[in-house]
Amino acid sequence: METLSENRCFGGTQGVYRHRSDACACDMTFGLFLPAEAADGPVPVLWFLSGLTCTHENAMTKAGAQAWAADQGIALVFPDTSPRGDDVPDDEAYDLGQGAGFYIDATQAPWDEHFKMWTYVADELPGLIAQAFPLDMDRQGVTGHSMGGHGALTMAMALPGRFRSVSAFAPICHPTASDWGRKQFAAYWGDETGWGPHDATLLMQESGFDGPMLIDTGTDDQFADLLGTEHLAQAMAARRQEGQIRLQKGYDHSYFFIASFIEDHIAFHAEALYA
Amino acid sequence: METLSENRCFGGTQGVYRHRSDACACDMTFGLFLPAEAADGPVPVLWFLSGLTCTHENAMTKAGAQAWAADQGIALVFPDTSPRGDDVPDDEAYDLGQGAGFYIDATQAPWDEHFKMWTYVADELPGLIAQAFPLDMDRQGVTGHSMGGHGALTMAMALPGRFRSVSAFAPICHPTASDWGRKQFAAYWGDETGWGPHDATLLMQESGFDGPMLIDTGTDDQFADLLGTEHLAQAMAARRQEGQIRLQKGYDHSYFFIASFIEDHIAFHAEALYA
Repeated sequence: METLSENRCFGGTQGVYRHRSDACACDMTFGLFLPAEAADGPVPVLWFLSGLTCTHENAMTKAGAQAWAADQGIALVFPDTSPRGDDVPDDEAYDLGQGAGFYIDATQAPWDEHFKMWTYVADELPGLIAQAFPLDMDRQGVTGHSMGGHGALTMAMALPGRFRSVSAFAPICHPTASDWGRKQFAAYWGDETGWGPHDATLLMQESGFDGPMLIDTGTDDQFADLLGTEHLAQAMAARRQEGQIRLQKGYDHSYFFIASFIEDHIAFHAEALYA
Repeated sequence: METLSENRCFGGTQGVYRHRSDACACDMTFGLFLPAEAADGPVPVLWFLSGLTCTHENAMTKAGAQAWAADQGIALVFPDTSPRGDDVPDDEAYDLGQGAGFYIDATQAPWDEHFKMWTYVADELPGLIAQAFPLDMDRQGVTGHSMGGHGALTMAMALPGRFRSVSAFAPICHPTASDWGRKQFAAYWGDETGWGPHDATLLMQESGFDGPMLIDTGTDDQFADLLGTEHLAQAMAARRQEGQIRLQKGYDHSYFFIASFIEDHIAFHAEALYA
C-alpha cells in the first residue's frame, strides 16, 4: 500500500492511500481520516460511501466531516465509487461504468472483470484497513450519499451484525424501480436475479436493520423521483424500523446539503458506536 | 448580474453569481453565503480571499466556513483570484496570470487591460454586493489564504477604517522579498514603484492595523520559505500590533489546515463585528 498524501487535520491525519485490489483487479485509492485518539489505540470507524461521479476525494474535501469525527474520536473511511484506469471499461454516460459502481458485483461482460464494488467495500477494504491502521472493527457505522446512500443502506441490512448504525443523505431508496438502478443492474447483471438483496426498500420489507437508522433528504432535491424516498419511508413505517427519515426544507442534492447535516449524522453514529 | 446557482446551506443560501466587471474588463464570478438572518435585514460581511490557482469555488466548498458563519449570522464573500477568459492573458506558470492576480492593479502589458484585482476587490465588488444583497457594509472583516492572506492583510492595512478585523491562513507576509511576490510584481508593474503598499510586512512597519489581527500558519507548511512569516512576526512585535501569530504544529498549506481552524477565525471576526 502506498501513501499518496497525509495532511494534519483537526488534530488528526487525513490520509490518501493506493493499493492493488484483488476484487477490482486494478489499483484503488481511498481516503482515511484518523482522529488524534488513534495514536493511543483503536478507534471506531464510520464509512462514507459516495455518489455517482465521485472519487474518494469529494466527501473527503467537501462534506466537512472531519470536524465532527475529530470531536467524537471516530475514524472516517472514504472509498472510491468504482474501479478506475485505462484498461477498466467505461461508458459515456455519467451513471454507468467508472464512477458508478453501485456497490454491486458485476457478472456481465465487459463489467465483470473489474466492477466488484460489493466485494471491495464489504470484504477487501475492511480487511486491508483493519491490518494497516488502529481501527476498532467491532465498532463500525456506515453512511453515504445518493448512490452511496444506497450502498450504505444495503450493506447495513445485508450484512447483519457488521454495522451498529446506518445513515444516509438523499439515498437511492428503491433502485429496482428507478432509472438510477435498473439501468446499472441490467448492465452489470443482465437479468433480475439477485437484484432484491441490493434494494434498500426490498431489504427493509424483508428484514430491516438491527439498530438505529437516520436518513436526510432535501425537499428540493432535484433527483427526488429517482431516489424513491417514499417507498423506503413506507417500508420503514410498516416494519416499525427504529429510525427516522427527515425531509429537510429547501435543501437539494448537493454537498452543501450534506455539510449542513453531517454534524447530526456523526453524533448519531457516535451514540451507537460508544453505547 | 446572473445567478449561476443557489443552494440551501446551514439554514441560509450559498449562491454563485456572475457579472460584468468594469475593473477587470471581463465577466467575473463570485460566491456569497447569506445566513438565515439575512432574511430579516443586513448582516455583517466576512471576505475570504483565496490563494494561487483558486477560483471562487475552492474556499466555498472546502473550507467548511459556512457552518460557523451560519452560527454567527455573518455573510461570506468568495471572490475569484484573477480575471478569466479566453481573451485574458495567461502564463504557463501556475503563479502568474489567471489564478494569480495577487490583489494588485497591473500597469504593464499584456496584464494591464484585465488584471485590476485591487480595484475589483477593494471597490467594484463591494459596491455591487452592497446594492444587491442585505449586507451591513459598516461591519466588514477580511481573511484569506496564502496569496489571499497577502490580499487580506494588505487591504486591511491600506484601507484604514474599512475592516474591523483581519485574519489570514498561511499568508504571504513579505512578497517584495519572496519569489511569491517579486516575480508577479515585476511582471504586473515592471519596476518597484508602489510595491510597498502591497507588502504586509512593510505596511506593518509603516502603519499597522487599527484592530485585532489573527494569523495561523502550520509548522509543516511546505511553502514556509516563500511565506516569510518571520518578517511579519518581527514587525508586529516591534509595532506592538494588537493580534497574534500562531504556529500550528504539524499542519501544512492545505485546505485541511484551513478547515481545522476556520471556526476560530470566524469567532474572532464575529467578536469584532458584533462589538
